[in-house]
Amino acid sequence: MRQRKKKWAPAQLANNPRIIRDAANHAGQFKQYFGNSNPIHLEIGCGKGCFIAEMSRKNPDINYIAIEREDVILAAAARHAEENGACSLAFLLMDADLLTEMFSPGDVDRLYLNFSDPWPGKKKRAKRRLTHEKYLAMYEQLAIPELYFKTDNRPLFEFSIESFSANGWLIKNISLDLHKSGIEDNVMTEYERKFSSMGMPIYRLEASPPRAASVSKQ
Amino acid sequence: MRQRKKKWAPAQLANNPRIIRDAANHAGQFKQYFGNSNPIHLEIGCGKGCFIAEMSRKNPDINYIAIEREDVILAAAARHAEENGACSLAFLLMDADLLTEMFSPGDVDRLYLNFSDPWPGKKKRAKRRLTHEKYLAMYEQLAIPELYFKTDNRPLFEFSIESFSANGWLIKNISLDLHKSGIEDNVMTEYERKFSSMGMPIYRLEASPPRAASVSKQ
Repeated sequence: MRQRKKKWAPAQLANNPRIIRDAANHAGQFKQYFGNSNPIHLEIGCGKGCFIAEMSRKNPDINYIAIEREDVILAAAARHAEENGACSLAFLLMDADLLTEMFSPGDVDRLYLNFSDPWPGKKKRAKRRLTHEKYLAMYEQLAIPELYFKTDNRPLFEFSIESFSANGWLIKNISLDLHKSGIEDNVMTEYERKFSSMGMPIYRLEASPPRAASVSKQ
Repeated sequence: MRQRKKKWAPAQLANNPRIIRDAANHAGQFKQYFGNSNPIHLEIGCGKGCFIAEMSRKNPDINYIAIEREDVILAAAARHAEENGACSLAFLLMDADLLTEMFSPGDVDRLYLNFSDPWPGKKKRAKRRLTHEKYLAMYEQLAIPELYFKTDNRPLFEFSIESFSANGWLIKNISLDLHKSGIEDNVMTEYERKFSSMGMPIYRLEASPPRAASVSKQ
């Protein structure tokens, strides 16, 4: 999602207290950043941030970090969190490609991918999908024990199932039509609200990397 | 699918040349039964047999076996094959639970599960689903290198993805809406024709057991 420059964005980026600006100082030490030992749940690509703000309000005992590579979108998400209330929630302007530089193994206890860019078309672009084996290897390197993924994009979900399978990840709690599955406590993103109101199915799954899967089986 | 007794069924069961009656004599020796060394593709639960008959006409170099546990349905499928033409196609009245008694490792080169009974409801019934780990273990024991599965039943497909994943099977070529996927050469079953004409998505995947998957990766 690309957005035009917004007049209010620079002030948010400069002053919103939820945006981590000295990120390099916190790399690998996010537990200290939050000043508690609660689990950290990370969302890659938070869009306007409605999902992660609501999650933080519902779960005050979880620390949330949302990363986003577009500054104007990050500014909007941080503003939303300040205006609508949020508990333990911080934002970080960064590209997912730098994940293993900014985080250390054990930092992240759960990863959320919500309506990620499907990068349709050419095979070459598949490398940019956040469920491509290149990213799965990064999540594995960070020892993230679980990943929650939802999307309305059928080709992306098909690609993702094959990618998880080919890389030995365990797929659990899959739903091919989330809003007809009777799942409770689903917090919707702004995209999800729009697409499900159009009658389109929302796909969802949970996945665990090979090592975590084998541990949980024991 | 249960059907009432049909007047023509006993004659088919007694005389249709495509029905293997002395099955015990052929157990583990189906290549000899067909008198050639072509691959054998097996369908469990063939229904009225339109799919398997059309497959056999399209692929004369493949030997097809369709098994079915309901005698009247098997009779209908065998009659269909005789009346509409079929190449190398044989039918066997048997329950899938006897698979490892009737077949030996290496007998079957591909398995088709089409619109299998979803056994909805109680967890206890899940054991009867043909993608339950109990059956996956049987397919693995028979060293069947690949399984092609399609269904219109969302809960069954969700269950199956989780079952394949939990048991280390590799999932490939998945489609969550087969008739919108641009896949060519799809031979439809009678069920598929009905459900897709109602606008319902048809789910499809291919899967390989752990050993075959690791071999094909090398």
